[in-house]
Amino acid sequence: MEWQTIVSAHERIRPRIHRTPALTSKSLDAMAGAELFFKCENLQKTGSFKIRGASNAILSLGTAEATRGVVTLSSGNHGAAVACAAGWRQIPAWIVMPKNVPVVKCRAVESYGGKITFCEPTITARAEAAARLQAETGAVLIHPYDDDRIIAGQATAAKELMEDVPELDAVLAPVSGGGLLSGTCQGAKGLRQEVRVFGCEPERADDAYRSLKTGELQKLDSSDTIADGLRASLAPRTFAILRKHVDGILLVSEDEIKATMRLIWERMKIVIEPSSAVALAPLLRTGGVASLELPKPEGKPARLGVILSGGNVELG
Amino acid sequence: MEWQTIVSAHERIRPRIHRTPALTSKSLDAMAGAELFFKCENLQKTGSFKIRGASNAILSLGTAEATRGVVTLSSGNHGAAVACAAGWRQIPAWIVMPKNVPVVKCRAVESYGGKITFCEPTITARAEAAARLQAETGAVLIHPYDDDRIIAGQATAAKELMEDVPELDAVLAPVSGGGLLSGTCQGAKGLRQEVRVFGCEPERADDAYRSLKTGELQKLDSSDTIADGLRASLAPRTFAILRKHVDGILLVSEDEIKATMRLIWERMKIVIEPSSAVALAPLLRTGGVASLELPKPEGKPARLGVILSGGNVELG
Repeated sequence: MEWQTIVSAHERIRPRIHRTPALTSKSLDAMAGAELFFKCENLQKTGSFKIRGASNAILSLGTAEATRGVVTLSSGNHGAAVACAAGWRQIPAWIVMPKNVPVVKCRAVESYGGKITFCEPTITARAEAAARLQAETGAVLIHPYDDDRIIAGQATAAKELMEDVPELDAVLAPVSGGGLLSGTCQGAKGLRQEVRVFGCEPERADDAYRSLKTGELQKLDSSDTIADGLRASLAPRTFAILRKHVDGILLVSEDEIKATMRLIWERMKIVIEPSSAVALAPLLRTGGVASLELPKPEGKPARLGVILSGGNVELG
Repeated sequence: MEWQTIVSAHERIRPRIHRTPALTSKSLDAMAGAELFFKCENLQKTGSFKIRGASNAILSLGTAEATRGVVTLSSGNHGAAVACAAGWRQIPAWIVMPKNVPVVKCRAVESYGGKITFCEPTITARAEAAARLQAETGAVLIHPYDDDRIIAGQATAAKELMEDVPELDAVLAPVSGGGLLSGTCQGAKGLRQEVRVFGCEPERADDAYRSLKTGELQKLDSSDTIADGLRASLAPRTFAILRKHVDGILLVSEDEIKATMRLIWERMKIVIEPSSAVALAPLLRTGGVASLELPKPEGKPARLGVILSGGNVELG
């Protein structure tokens, strides 16, 4: 992807989105043994980074194309983002969601005026439902990650982080379908060639890890990880980008996800969803930062960006 | 208080504290019918604004005075802040806390190296315990609010908010002992004379409301409000400042506090403690913003600052 594509995406969406803060926490720094900078996309409009890609895609549509509306399949955050961005253009948005999605995510979609169609919680069932809706309405499909406009939009989170925090050694982001991670690679390395980018993934949804290890795209038919935003698998497009640009995929257990989520709530006073915790968890293990093998002079703490992807979690 | 006192306090503490963001939320704007700017002191070091006053007071101490250490009485956030700021100066800190304080607040004090002494949850018992400790150790008392250095420190939150958000019509802050509210009056009006400042107080701890209404300092011996940071009562010093500068005190019910706290967690994706919710709650009532009687041209939404004072709440 040309750097200019990301710059243009940023210009397009900037008036609509929040420039989210990069928060720090001395107590989490001490636990990780590094300087951490948290890009707080949980504080983004719609409660996740997904509005970046969705608004870039939807604001890019020609008038004739846009008029028929948009359709998407989403475990929640992308659906809410598409509904929100469609609302900004005053065009209809049909959202296909798996029926086991948290209630809070449905309410969000509806509050933005999106029309929900429920389906079985499998990749196949979701794709079929979306295709049917497309055929019926003539709406444009806004895929959650298999789309360059989406990836360019997601790249703007890392671009902002790199602009706001100088000299980062590495950036960590969760990986599911790979839109955010592909964008993070390109947004971060476009501004600082030597920065490392790592994807973080639940052990229970480890398709990106297996795909990169085997060199062949691996599928995940379904997953029950608590990180409900990370149950999708890579597309050929995102797999190709990650093979070229990502420096590694780190797996985390369900227990690590839960403990890290709680820790962030408690120490940083922000609400994050389980998927966000996945990007910090690998750094909290003994030897976690060392395992990144960053080319850092001894005794100098690593400077690490962590993308907290969203905050849409059902409150107890 | 001279404006220069606040400027000097800000210069003194600025290298140590976070410049917390002023977050916005379109959905809360829509509910209030105003443009809201939330000063997020829950994201401040130690999880509350209290570090501003405590660090200003403690960093102001002469070397000989500082060496004997500091002592304070606190329902929690001020205690943690004193322990933290004392740690920065590497001097001992003795903290008197009521025995019914949430566990999370004790852990915070201990994590900063503070030494806790528990007492009965009454103003009298706390003052006695603090006096005893002072006599025993020779430590300097850092009162939570009856101290100009504390008030000047707390004023820097409103100063930052006014610097970051132009043309605010009013600022709302919770009131307990009156340190934050006194500082908010002076920090806000020092930068923009015409801004209105309102204190917000639980109905169940309504001493500031009664004091200002009657013109005589009213005491509160104890309170069971869920807003555990707001159970103190005004001192003569803060009462005098508020009589001169505050534009009104707004009371809120326990149910309003709980509902508003949940709403902020859900919509803004930040963790706030009940005391913080008190400053937004009055704006969410029917006619809430109108009741402030701001001199605003019709049809132009009011621009309101809301100080979210802290985020130290025990997670379920």
